[in-house]
Amino acid sequence: MGAPCNFLCEPFSGSFKGLIVWYCLLLSLTQWSSATATSNKTRSLHFYKWEVEYMYWSPDGLENVVMSINGKFPGPTIRARAGDTVHVHLTNKLHTEGVVIHWHGIRQKGTPWADGTASISQCAINPGESFDYRFTVDRAGTYFYHGHYGMQRSAGLYGSLIVDVAEGEKEPFHYDGEFDLLLSDWWHESAHHQEVGLSSRPMRWIGEPQTLLVNGRGQYGCSLAAHYSNNSSLSQCNVTGHEQWAPFILHVDPNKTYRIRLSSTTALASLNLAIGNHKMLVVEADGNYLQPFETDDLDIYSGESYSVLLKTSQDPSQNYWISFGVRGRKPQTPQALTILNYKTNSASKFPLSPPPVTPRWDDYAHSKAFTNKVKALDHKTIPKPPSTYHRRITLLNTQNKMNGYTKWSINNVSLSLPATPYLGSIRFGLQNGFDQTKPPENFPVQYDVMKPPGNPNTTTGNGVYMLGYYSTVDVILQNANALAENVSEIHPWHLHGHDFWVLAYGEGKFTKDDEKKFNLKNPPYRNSAVIFPYGWTALRFVADNPGVWAFHCHIEPHLHMGMGVVLAEGVQRLPKIPKEALSCGLTGKKFMTGNHLG
Amino acid sequence: MGAPCNFLCEPFSGSFKGLIVWYCLLLSLTQWSSATATSNKTRSLHFYKWEVEYMYWSPDGLENVVMSINGKFPGPTIRARAGDTVHVHLTNKLHTEGVVIHWHGIRQKGTPWADGTASISQCAINPGESFDYRFTVDRAGTYFYHGHYGMQRSAGLYGSLIVDVAEGEKEPFHYDGEFDLLLSDWWHESAHHQEVGLSSRPMRWIGEPQTLLVNGRGQYGCSLAAHYSNNSSLSQCNVTGHEQWAPFILHVDPNKTYRIRLSSTTALASLNLAIGNHKMLVVEADGNYLQPFETDDLDIYSGESYSVLLKTSQDPSQNYWISFGVRGRKPQTPQALTILNYKTNSASKFPLSPPPVTPRWDDYAHSKAFTNKVKALDHKTIPKPPSTYHRRITLLNTQNKMNGYTKWSINNVSLSLPATPYLGSIRFGLQNGFDQTKPPENFPVQYDVMKPPGNPNTTTGNGVYMLGYYSTVDVILQNANALAENVSEIHPWHLHGHDFWVLAYGEGKFTKDDEKKFNLKNPPYRNSAVIFPYGWTALRFVADNPGVWAFHCHIEPHLHMGMGVVLAEGVQRLPKIPKEALSCGLTGKKFMTGNHLG
Repeated sequence: MGAPCNFLCEPFSGSFKGLIVWYCLLLSLTQWSSATATSNKTRSLHFYKWEVEYMYWSPDGLENVVMSINGKFPGPTIRARAGDTVHVHLTNKLHTEGVVIHWHGIRQKGTPWADGTASISQCAINPGESFDYRFTVDRAGTYFYHGHYGMQRSAGLYGSLIVDVAEGEKEPFHYDGEFDLLLSDWWHESAHHQEVGLSSRPMRWIGEPQTLLVNGRGQYGCSLAAHYSNNSSLSQCNVTGHEQWAPFILHVDPNKTYRIRLSSTTALASLNLAIGNHKMLVVEADGNYLQPFETDDLDIYSGESYSVLLKTSQDPSQNYWISFGVRGRKPQTPQALTILNYKTNSASKFPLSPPPVTPRWDDYAHSKAFTNKVKALDHKTIPKPPSTYHRRITLLNTQNKMNGYTKWSINNVSLSLPATPYLGSIRFGLQNGFDQTKPPENFPVQYDVMKPPGNPNTTTGNGVYMLGYYSTVDVILQNANALAENVSEIHPWHLHGHDFWVLAYGEGKFTKDDEKKFNLKNPPYRNSAVIFPYGWTALRFVADNPGVWAFHCHIEPHLHMGMGVVLAEGVQRLPKIPKEALSCGLTGKKFMTGNHLG
Repeated sequence: MGAPCNFLCEPFSGSFKGLIVWYCLLLSLTQWSSATATSNKTRSLHFYKWEVEYMYWSPDGLENVVMSINGKFPGPTIRARAGDTVHVHLTNKLHTEGVVIHWHGIRQKGTPWADGTASISQCAINPGESFDYRFTVDRAGTYFYHGHYGMQRSAGLYGSLIVDVAEGEKEPFHYDGEFDLLLSDWWHESAHHQEVGLSSRPMRWIGEPQTLLVNGRGQYGCSLAAHYSNNSSLSQCNVTGHEQWAPFILHVDPNKTYRIRLSSTTALASLNLAIGNHKMLVVEADGNYLQPFETDDLDIYSGESYSVLLKTSQDPSQNYWISFGVRGRKPQTPQALTILNYKTNSASKFPLSPPPVTPRWDDYAHSKAFTNKVKALDHKTIPKPPSTYHRRITLLNTQNKMNGYTKWSINNVSLSLPATPYLGSIRFGLQNGFDQTKPPENFPVQYDVMKPPGNPNTTTGNGVYMLGYYSTVDVILQNANALAENVSEIHPWHLHGHDFWVLAYGEGKFTKDDEKKFNLKNPPYRNSAVIFPYGWTALRFVADNPGVWAFHCHIEPHLHMGMGVVLAEGVQRLPKIPKEALSCGLTGKKFMTGNHLG
């Protein structure tokens, strides 16, 4: 028996030691029997005490206000081993806003109230109050966390969550060192004002981001690589390395293998990564191993994560550019740049060549070729998809109008989240908690996905797709033309509480015949998948996780405009739910005694 | 018996009629017996259904985001008669922020949970949820309402609340027409960012307002009266009258008497009003009648209200300027201007003379002379102060430092509001709800109010001054030097749930000997009173209203920085408290059954 309590308490304060020791003792006692019965592996508890507040910060050289955790932007990195428990005691230090944090990619088996989705898994945490997120990280991989209330992710509430393999276990590949890169995009207009604009009549679009950030750092109004071009509109950045916006440089030794973990928590931008003179070997996506494949550049959509292996096999007397550019939308945002620095050089030595250029933004063939290379490693590490499904739900993605407002809708319903978390409403049969009408499973057969909607009008709703527990569900995500002619956008969809198999990507309208294209042999197993313009994506998953789960476009303004659905399964099988998760709305009222207190 | 249900439902929507009819019926039944027993006056119910949300608006010609009620800025005016019931069903349509509304000047006798102070009288209303403010307006007068959570008042959450005398009763003065002017100040930086700056280390002060607003309208970057001066830095405003920022013009007939109601909900600015060629007769302050006195100009501090009578006795072939200027702080904000338009003219005809000029900002002698003219009308309408007191609390107002943060403190305690409303914590004996230490009743005798604090360090706290029910309490508000030498600011203090008698204003440090200056004959009875630089103000009130009540500097950033105290009396005498007011924090947890739900 190993000691059941190894603490990795990053924000460890003296006054807090007592509580931790007490916690450890309690945990030792309660875990003793289960530990002896089930496993002889060491399971650690990682306790964090976090405070969320706004602070002044210069993510890109222009001072602004960001959401911070314990005074950090991005928030602190959580690092644990597979099987460990993470416990974040989160205190809301905002003045008037609620807050929640979603642990993106963590399936929350047995703890659906810790998924951190306001209105779905819990009540937003009120100012001055705290909530305990306590969950198991059951699988090694590259994850992240972020706000899931209003547009607080856009405001900068995010950080990395890295899970290593359990002690004594090994990754299916070797590496000598590691870098964690969290990618985001940044606007100078506050997320509050962005929300107001998106909800205005007529809608005011947020526009393209001013800056792309790598680990919260970018450069606005200057370029690290301006001097390669005589006619650059940007001046050369004057950066010492100590600025909040100085690039996060990757310092490497020659002739080693590095794992670069990439996570994208962008509000909008689809990104492409390339590293001068170096190829990458893609080995992981969304916490699942891949059949390794080599690439010159990598597409990453909001909500996705990847690991790539990089061999530092190039001329060690040089440094090399790492660049991130925008894909899928006409770029109005400069590339994010940083340096792969062979430590044999000064980090400030310029690479010989200018930074690699991202493929043309609308070269979708390039993106599809990359996406089609992503395959599951094997069935030792990744479960095999069931060969058939119990229920198929087709979700048409359309841009619509409603009384002059602009909305995104799924099968012509634009999601408007209720005040009472679904987890409570469903568990306790509170029919006024949300729309009891079943949301549509399909769209009219005559709908032409290649043209703007004939009737652009939509309605809001918040019904739930109730799934049979342990049933196999196919979802066909069907893209379409937006409101304007000849426009169809990329939408990266993210599923909470599950991974799904990505069975196929296709063009035009999905038909029964397209089932032949399904890859049931080695489909990637992930929590996020993109639909390409005018295309469809077929997903399959097993509804094996009791709880209520968001499934939505990970573009923050699209979700804000209604682009998501809610799924639920096995809610009655849940053990009791911590009341702190449900102390608002109808559940708060239901469980408070009587009509008046006194 | 008059019908007990006369509706004045401004935002009356068709779908809502059913509810109102039902409500009316219910109210008729419940009020029948009490109405027959107590009074034969008609008592009306005024029901409003309000939604709070952000919207784009141009209060001063520059587009910005404001808090709106039912799409209006300022919010709709409430108008009722003394003895009526006002019922506001308030729905929070904000995305991530809580909200409350305080009914400034309404004493909330018997309904302390409707006072609308977050953390004190109720939990903030969560996004998507509603709260019912239902209270009696027991006395005619000029009132207003505003947000009382974070700095939502600064963000534009305010409106007028006018109470006329009961049917069949008369005001002690005559007038032919009326204008309601709600005064505020406006910043181009959002209240969210202002909050972050004030809470930053080092503190970032919000600066002076960009614009003064009259009924939510002001002019930035131009002046209505630029053409009077050759060297004005501002251009003449190009205004048609239809702009959101066009001035609110007072259209009058000659040879009439008008009542002008003035309320100041400024975040910071103390104001002075003057009207070209016209004198004013001051007749009401904070809902209480005054011995009428004539004045050329009137000082009004944040939180105060006045009524003045204006005779339109001047040359009816001319129009006249109405101007509002900043007092007490070196003005960096142009005067607010509008026009007194004799209808015999076009409203666009310019007055002959330039707008009246506010007295010099630091001419405190002028302000004190005005303030000392404010006396209660008589003891038929205004109660007589008790001749002695049971308890005296002296409150020293100081600016301080705390770990690098800047704070305002009262007796060296800077108020930091708890997550659980005091009303619940006190009623149910939840000792963890707030600091159980009694806050100090005085400050060290050797403290030199004329100099910066010898030791600038302060601490935060949230203890409560527990007052004996029906005891007479004297409060000496003692001003002092701020952190910088030779600086002492004006602080307008506002008391919730009560009016107080303003017994005296004095200079320097209050001593026992100053009691001789107390005016026990006809002191003004109000809810707001100012302390002048380096001075003191003596107040007396009777703690006759069971509840928990804020008492604070009405300058919004000062309150945000801790400049307030909390008073409580007779809380155990309250009937049962509506649970909606207490469904957060420790009361929410206490009254939710068990530790887990299921």
